[in-house]
Amino acid sequence: MRLKEIASIIGAEFDAKDIEILAIASLSDANENELSFSMDSKYKDDIQNSSAGAIIVNKYTKEFVPKNSVALVVDSPYWELATISKYFAPPIEENSLEKAIIGEGSNISPKAELANGAIIGKNCTIMAHVYIGTNAVIGDNTVLYPSVTIYRDCVVGNNCIVHANTSIGSDGFGFATNKAGEHRKIYQNGNVVIEDDVELGSAVTIDRAVFASTIIKKGSRLDNQVHIAHNCVVGEYSALAAQVGIAGSSEVGRNMVMGGQSAISGHLHIAPFTTLAGKSAITKSIKQSGLTFAGFPSMEHRIWLKLQAKLARLVK
Amino acid sequence: MRLKEIASIIGAEFDAKDIEILAIASLSDANENELSFSMDSKYKDDIQNSSAGAIIVNKYTKEFVPKNSVALVVDSPYWELATISKYFAPPIEENSLEKAIIGEGSNISPKAELANGAIIGKNCTIMAHVYIGTNAVIGDNTVLYPSVTIYRDCVVGNNCIVHANTSIGSDGFGFATNKAGEHRKIYQNGNVVIEDDVELGSAVTIDRAVFASTIIKKGSRLDNQVHIAHNCVVGEYSALAAQVGIAGSSEVGRNMVMGGQSAISGHLHIAPFTTLAGKSAITKSIKQSGLTFAGFPSMEHRIWLKLQAKLARLVK
Amino acid sequence: MRLKEIASIIGAEFDAKDIEILAIASLSDANENELSFSMDSKYKDDIQNSSAGAIIVNKYTKEFVPKNSVALVVDSPYWELATISKYFAPPIEENSLEKAIIGEGSNISPKAELANGAIIGKNCTIMAHVYIGTNAVIGDNTVLYPSVTIYRDCVVGNNCIVHANTSIGSDGFGFATNKAGEHRKIYQNGNVVIEDDVELGSAVTIDRAVFASTIIKKGSRLDNQVHIAHNCVVGEYSALAAQVGIAGSSEVGRNMVMGGQSAISGHLHIAPFTTLAGKSAITKSIKQSGLTFAGFPSMEHRIWLKLQAKLARLVK
Repeated sequence: MRLKEIASIIGAEFDAKDIEILAIASLSDANENELSFSMDSKYKDDIQNSSAGAIIVNKYTKEFVPKNSVALVVDSPYWELATISKYFAPPIEENSLEKAIIGEGSNISPKAELANGAIIGKNCTIMAHVYIGTNAVIGDNTVLYPSVTIYRDCVVGNNCIVHANTSIGSDGFGFATNKAGEHRKIYQNGNVVIEDDVELGSAVTIDRAVFASTIIKKGSRLDNQVHIAHNCVVGEYSALAAQVGIAGSSEVGRNMVMGGQSAISGHLHIAPFTTLAGKSAITKSIKQSGLTFAGFPSMEHRIWLKLQAKLARLVK
Repeated sequence: MRLKEIASIIGAEFDAKDIEILAIASLSDANENELSFSMDSKYKDDIQNSSAGAIIVNKYTKEFVPKNSVALVVDSPYWELATISKYFAPPIEENSLEKAIIGEGSNISPKAELANGAIIGKNCTIMAHVYIGTNAVIGDNTVLYPSVTIYRDCVVGNNCIVHANTSIGSDGFGFATNKAGEHRKIYQNGNVVIEDDVELGSAVTIDRAVFASTIIKKGSRLDNQVHIAHNCVVGEYSALAAQVGIAGSSEVGRNMVMGGQSAISGHLHIAPFTTLAGKSAITKSIKQSGLTFAGFPSMEHRIWLKLQAKLARLVK
Repeated sequence: MRLKEIASIIGAEFDAKDIEILAIASLSDANENELSFSMDSKYKDDIQNSSAGAIIVNKYTKEFVPKNSVALVVDSPYWELATISKYFAPPIEENSLEKAIIGEGSNISPKAELANGAIIGKNCTIMAHVYIGTNAVIGDNTVLYPSVTIYRDCVVGNNCIVHANTSIGSDGFGFATNKAGEHRKIYQNGNVVIEDDVELGSAVTIDRAVFASTIIKKGSRLDNQVHIAHNCVVGEYSALAAQVGIAGSSEVGRNMVMGGQSAISGHLHIAPFTTLAGKSAITKSIKQSGLTFAGFPSMEHRIWLKLQAKLARLVK
């Protein structure tokens, strides 16, 4: 899509050299043929260091746009990101692609649906009522139980097990809101990558990234009804018990252990080998490895135990 | 169904004029051809003002039944409501109806199932393993991802997106319990109405109303694994993050914002523009607009922060 | 499988009489043709009283193995249980079995999938996109709504209702972890038994037992998005509201009532007629019947109310 057309759609003035924009990406990932955005001067450094071909900004942040990048100045960059994201959304399915490729020894139920462009590895078991979308890739020896949905472009590794009614690649919870309180969808054009040797329980939901990938690293175990939001990264060999939720863009290190119904807020970094008790929630990034937390808001588990003892004494 | 027969089934004396009863409804909604119920004298006013053709009551509440209405007196009105609700339950599917009507430009997967009597609008995308029940209505430009289930009689508006494995219209959690501790199902004969421009995440569950409708108003956004119980109303442009639950019959105003894993108890009214922090739960109605709450039981967010600071000092 | 071969696979010395091992079971359930395991001397009595044909132990627990049982001594019994559990896992489907048997008057959607060896009772309604696995048994008059998955060997009783997108029999969250932090799956070779007159909401998940059965007793009601882990027993006429979770191996007595989003930790015994408030969690066994609990960690409800009053005063 031509940058001039983008400017016209979002109502930004345009007198730069016109270029072809191929995708939307974050400030740090975007290249010269990609569009990015920023509405807040706290991301000043990210703007200045961006290699994006163009950046949607407002009057406060336009001054940080580097000279190799075109500034598209609007009142509400996030709202206009939503506006333009739609134009970069791929179709839900692409029937013009070739039929799905199925590896040797794989057993595909006639009641499963494989969209064109999908690739299935060797010795897989794809059960009834499974859906595998356009360009999705499934590794070798992987089992997808009934009613699993893999959205387009998502990747599931080798030796994975995905239990019934689990959804991989649904849209992240992304939208802009205007002053009237109305929402506009930010199309989620990234994907999900499930690495090798991962097991996902039933009714798990893992959202695709807005750009780039939501990643579940190798050897992780997610129990039933776990929710992983867009752009999260779950470290290797993590074990998340049932009904856990991780909010958008949080990254947890390897061997994270989360008790049932616990949660992690968005945009956090959690050190490797962190443990969170059931029903608890981490709301700040954790830098030190190997600690155990409990409560909401969470504190170190030994302090939480002390607090519960004090509270028990209050009502004695 | 004849009222005399109803009286006989639930063991109530009957010496009034017999009438035809077409449905069961709440005291305030029921008309002269409908049956209602009440077991508690705290609903005295509702009984006295009801236009119901007949009301199932007990010996304490029978005196409030207005003279245009027939009192069916039993020991346990709620249990007998359960007994009789079964007779008003429609069949799960009605094959005698005409085949589903599909609007121009809609793309229906051959692996989707459309029950007879369903109506699909224009330019919809109905993916594999979707089920659309008898008399369900889907608006224009709506996308239903794989394994979405729309139960009979439910309505989804225009420009909606419903992600994979979401269920709309399952039965509300309604039952009566006798003294032996046994339960009897109260058949859920209402429906769900999803208005225009709503997006629902994956593995969302929205229960049909016991009578009338559970409603998600236009422009709302529900993230993955949100649960909305029977007879709730979610106001316009609300944004409910993942794993939120709203219990039965609660009504939230427009632009409600709920953090992940938060909840609202049943039978509450929440003012517009209310925000609830993640993991928190509102247990009382909120009358003032624009406030933010946190904790369980919830309090204003600024007070909750103060409380957390005090608690932190306790263990220092 | 021959015991000598098992010893060889897990690297245990073997100089006993070779026997045929037919299954893995718990110390108390295992018979002379079954294998069990124990890594902790706190289970000394269970080991000494076991009738297992062989027991995987370590150097600390081997002395407790009774003389009729063969001790297989390894460094990490739990890890080796995982290793060997795979060999006892049945195939996902068994196509060599006879076609599913369908009782008189049952209505099976052509878009449902019945694996060979399944048995469906009379007058059932099996809707589109349902999956019923090998050797699964469904009673009479039972309704399975769309996209319900019943894994192999599971049993659903008479007069049950299972709402859309619910999964019964997915694998429990079982794995061993080695010193490098890697996980190895413990194959879940038990099943789920749903007794008569049970209603399950939509997107419920009930895991199969590692050995033996996860059981939901007659007349129980589970609302949407409830999660029941492996080897749990839910007592008769229990009522679990939406988004409840019960962790592995816990047993709750009859007429348990759990509010929305509440939870019970693993390996507990809860007395009959216990009530748990919404959002709360029981972390210790409850011996006395008829009490009501709230909070996390939970305490008696009346004490919890007192505590909330004290806390409210702290910030006044």
